[in-house]
Amino acid sequence: MTSRDFLTDFQHMSAVGATAGGGVDRQAGTAADLEVRAWLRDTFSAMGLSEHQDAIGNQFGLKEYIPGAPYVLLGSHLDSQPMGGKYDGAYGVLAAAHAAHRVMERIAAGRLNPSLNLAVVNWFNEEGSRFTPSMMGSSVYTGELELDEALAVTDKAGISVAEALADEEVHRCDTAPRAACYAEIHIEQGPILERAGKTIGLVDGTWGAKKYTVTIKGEQGHTGATPMDQRKDALYGAAKFIVAARELVDQFPEGLLHTSVSTLELFPNSPVTYAGEVTINLDLRSVDTTVLADAEVVLAQQRNAIEAVARVEITQELTHQWGLMPYHSAGLELAEDVVRELDQPFQYIKTVAGHDSTNMKEQVPTVMLFVPSRDGYSHNEKEFTTDKDMLAGVDMLTGVAERLITGELVENTL
Amino acid sequence: MTSRDFLTDFQHMSAVGATAGGGVDRQAGTAADLEVRAWLRDTFSAMGLSEHQDAIGNQFGLKEYIPGAPYVLLGSHLDSQPMGGKYDGAYGVLAAAHAAHRVMERIAAGRLNPSLNLAVVNWFNEEGSRFTPSMMGSSVYTGELELDEALAVTDKAGISVAEALADEEVHRCDTAPRAACYAEIHIEQGPILERAGKTIGLVDGTWGAKKYTVTIKGEQGHTGATPMDQRKDALYGAAKFIVAARELVDQFPEGLLHTSVSTLELFPNSPVTYAGEVTINLDLRSVDTTVLADAEVVLAQQRNAIEAVARVEITQELTHQWGLMPYHSAGLELAEDVVRELDQPFQYIKTVAGHDSTNMKEQVPTVMLFVPSRDGYSHNEKEFTTDKDMLAGVDMLTGVAERLITGELVENTL
Repeated sequence: MTSRDFLTDFQHMSAVGATAGGGVDRQAGTAADLEVRAWLRDTFSAMGLSEHQDAIGNQFGLKEYIPGAPYVLLGSHLDSQPMGGKYDGAYGVLAAAHAAHRVMERIAAGRLNPSLNLAVVNWFNEEGSRFTPSMMGSSVYTGELELDEALAVTDKAGISVAEALADEEVHRCDTAPRAACYAEIHIEQGPILERAGKTIGLVDGTWGAKKYTVTIKGEQGHTGATPMDQRKDALYGAAKFIVAARELVDQFPEGLLHTSVSTLELFPNSPVTYAGEVTINLDLRSVDTTVLADAEVVLAQQRNAIEAVARVEITQELTHQWGLMPYHSAGLELAEDVVRELDQPFQYIKTVAGHDSTNMKEQVPTVMLFVPSRDGYSHNEKEFTTDKDMLAGVDMLTGVAERLITGELVENTL
Repeated sequence: MTSRDFLTDFQHMSAVGATAGGGVDRQAGTAADLEVRAWLRDTFSAMGLSEHQDAIGNQFGLKEYIPGAPYVLLGSHLDSQPMGGKYDGAYGVLAAAHAAHRVMERIAAGRLNPSLNLAVVNWFNEEGSRFTPSMMGSSVYTGELELDEALAVTDKAGISVAEALADEEVHRCDTAPRAACYAEIHIEQGPILERAGKTIGLVDGTWGAKKYTVTIKGEQGHTGATPMDQRKDALYGAAKFIVAARELVDQFPEGLLHTSVSTLELFPNSPVTYAGEVTINLDLRSVDTTVLADAEVVLAQQRNAIEAVARVEITQELTHQWGLMPYHSAGLELAEDVVRELDQPFQYIKTVAGHDSTNMKEQVPTVMLFVPSRDGYSHNEKEFTTDKDMLAGVDMLTGVAERLITGELVENTL
């Protein structure tokens, strides 16, 4: 167990799957993802953590102090979006490993007395870009998603999760270490902390989200010959829907509603035949459930109008949703104690994005922390957090872990 | 040489690559296309036509009367769009074969004296859905497209034209039969003849067309976390452009302008990352060059407005265009004589769609004929032409071919 420099490790880790634009491309189960997982395996080993993988490829680094006791679990994810940033998820895994390492050093020096075991986790496929749904590893861990169902998911090339994971030659177990509590640190992915001049965000809740698959059905025809008034052009209908979904936000107070369409498949996608069918996603998020409900009503009216104008049929199917969910108050109190001791500027904040912690907090006491994202860039190579903020975050997570390992949060809340 | 029933042949031909919805799916060089080409080879053979293929896979059926003389060429194409109709192109090839067969019977019976040779052609890849550009075979034949360039074109799976053609085990020659003149019959692909109660359309010109590749560049980001006012969502920009392009037609008198966007590729096409880049096509067609020019000006203004609102950059590159081009007046006179003799209701008409004849007419005297399309359906399984109209078209093409074989059009115009 040797002392390691966080920034040096961060640099090495970020070189795996690096893109020319300063980001990373490490979609779940790709060669780049398996390479960074191998790097983490070596890092675990150098830090005195023993690797343990469960059946869905969640990668744990374990340090057992109390045989049979549950674990303080710290972590995030190393997989990325296509052409993504190098901080998203990866910063949290490395911060977890370094926080754990520091806690281990304090325990070894006799300055801290553990009443739980300690583990770092790299959750498999948090991003969900190659294999849907997102947060796959933590969803299987918490029992929200069946293992067999997750392993059978295929990417666009028809490769299954099981096949992608089989390329990594490691031993996987049916069991995973049992968590007593969980802590995660992540870049904010928005501009709030930076604008407010705060270093640490204490996440007290999630925005609500509703996700849909939207299918627009028309009838294919000749791009030149078919008279305009006779067309049932599915891509025209889809385009009007995408515009309506985006401009929905203007009907609500600024910042209350986020909407996106980010995926699109069309048939036949041919230069001289306009589309007969288009499938898109729809992602609605708000910090206010009333706004979400109102947005759905307005969009439904617009959907009907688009069906009439574009002569198409639109079906909208809810595929995933979560409400406005609070994080544990005892965890927030613990984290606020730590941030005050460290004398860092902080604020309470909500997360718009989903995280593995949004799964974990339904099972065990959970602390979720943010550090600033410059200009709020996310899922983009330009994503950036300063070294100073990253290091402050590691200190913060270390402070939280030191309290968790003594059983503080578990005793207070269970 | 035996007498054959056109409708029986049409039924057998339409069974190759048939779809459940009553259409066909025989994209160029696919197994279904090769199968229908084999069917045509057998048909040529039964009709006493000898097969000759050139290097780009144009499939000719030849009957030589005057050694060394050029050919009266009759034909169209057997390939289709994905989930296309069974009449588009295929009707014209079969009509050409039957017209040629009848001409051969009259010559054999000593009732017609040929001064040229006779050939039927199935042009390779007229549709251009799998391999771009469209009208590939006739473009190589007329020298508009280099053979090597055409053979090197790849589909989305990376398979080249040369590789697709290699699956057909036939002898191909560097040379093709030399045409003295050309005639093609095709379904109208629009509703004009049906609405007017006419059986035969004499095509006197083409609409003008301009085709573009349009690229919309933004910056990818998180569908949930990124603040709306900060987004540079390329799919939002693309959707606004698609709507603008479609609604451009409303600014011109009805029926004067046709616009389409039918292809779209987006990156990264991920459920939680909105698009950083989208590429679409744009297809503008008009019977009036002023309208085309005005449409471009209006669209350019809207493009600038979309760039500002969606915070994206849009580039629009012209990839292909043709002007309003007349068909040969001597050919129209010849065709009008025939249609009057046959006493069929007819009218002069322009073609909005491109055809192999639009290539051929730049080289040799060319006659282009239409039969009605019910409800104007095109590039759709619902495409339909009545048996009666099909048979009237075969009679019409036969009458034209009988005159062409005597050298009438060639003597009159060359």
